[in-house]
Amino acid sequence: MKKLKIILASQSPRRRELMEMLGIPFEIKVSDTDEIVTDTDPAAVTIELSRQKAAAVSALIDEGIVIGADTVVAWQGEILGKPRDREQAVQMITNLQGGAHMVYTGVTIWVKDRDGESHHSFAEGTKVRVAAMSEREIEDYVQSGEPYDKAGGYGIQGVFGKYVEGIEGDYYNVVGLPVHRLYEELKKLKFFKN
Amino acid sequence: MKKLKIILASQSPRRRELMEMLGIPFEIKVSDTDEIVTDTDPAAVTIELSRQKAAAVSALIDEGIVIGADTVVAWQGEILGKPRDREQAVQMITNLQGGAHMVYTGVTIWVKDRDGESHHSFAEGTKVRVAAMSEREIEDYVQSGEPYDKAGGYGIQGVFGKYVEGIEGDYYNVVGLPVHRLYEELKKLKFFKN
Repeated sequence: MKKLKIILASQSPRRRELMEMLGIPFEIKVSDTDEIVTDTDPAAVTIELSRQKAAAVSALIDEGIVIGADTVVAWQGEILGKPRDREQAVQMITNLQGGAHMVYTGVTIWVKDRDGESHHSFAEGTKVRVAAMSEREIEDYVQSGEPYDKAGGYGIQGVFGKYVEGIEGDYYNVVGLPVHRLYEELKKLKFFKN
Repeated sequence: MKKLKIILASQSPRRRELMEMLGIPFEIKVSDTDEIVTDTDPAAVTIELSRQKAAAVSALIDEGIVIGADTVVAWQGEILGKPRDREQAVQMITNLQGGAHMVYTGVTIWVKDRDGESHHSFAEGTKVRVAAMSEREIEDYVQSGEPYDKAGGYGIQGVFGKYVEGIEGDYYNVVGLPVHRLYEELKKLKFFKN
């Protein structure tokens, strides 16, 4: 296969940093999508959304490999979105503290060249254990403002890190991209020499 | 207890970033130590070394809380130091790939005030699983130059990240400081309101 350029279909500065760990050149291009979800399983939802993001960018280019990604926090099988207000942020952190939850990132690799298009998707899950937090600790964290732009109301790499007892799985998957798995998948496309 | 200032006895920029996750002010002060090791158990060695680092800085100050830390990579119960040359780096990565190893960080909290001194230490372990790597991948990684200043010959947060299948435990412990555990220990010293 001819070497196609890689395009990350995400504006997230965190995902860009994670892509850089792969050590290969890539561009960033995003396109608005409607984000239509038909599934309820958290991992399946991330796959659907990653596919929509990749498809939307793929439609803008003649050829290339587009990588779409979507990350969700799942608590007791339900997806926690971004908290809308203080009350919702407090509720999310209250739910997550003192137990384990899952973070899923779905990835779609969309290959487009002159011969046509093909794509495949996968989702990776990482378990995150959060320490028991007092009401004051929860209030202090919400007060920091960090929860509002984050699915599940927290960011593992910020000041919330001190409440994370441990994880099982790929840390970078929690940040926004399953770096090892993505590397393996790109190797199958001959993007790296074995 | 009166609030004493916190001093991190480490020059590592990574440890400084991890300390910042605690959200409290701290200073950095280091002092040369001889690093005398009497133990062979990896976790015990990190505790010994963290205590020596904390003690050396404590000797320079009138009062304060000194935090010393030491991180090692343990493979089959043996400590892997920093590789001296290319050959050693290749050997270390060859050993670590395709299996799991442990990373231990030992921490000593040394409290010194007008009434006297006290200190206590702990070690935290995190399991790291590294994917199987080809000879070419190992050569490429060593070629990047990253192994040479790193215990065990790799840094999880660098380009090696793509070879890490997953971890069990505190990710930040692998980077150099068990942030959650340290937070809990400092809470016991009333450094954070509950």
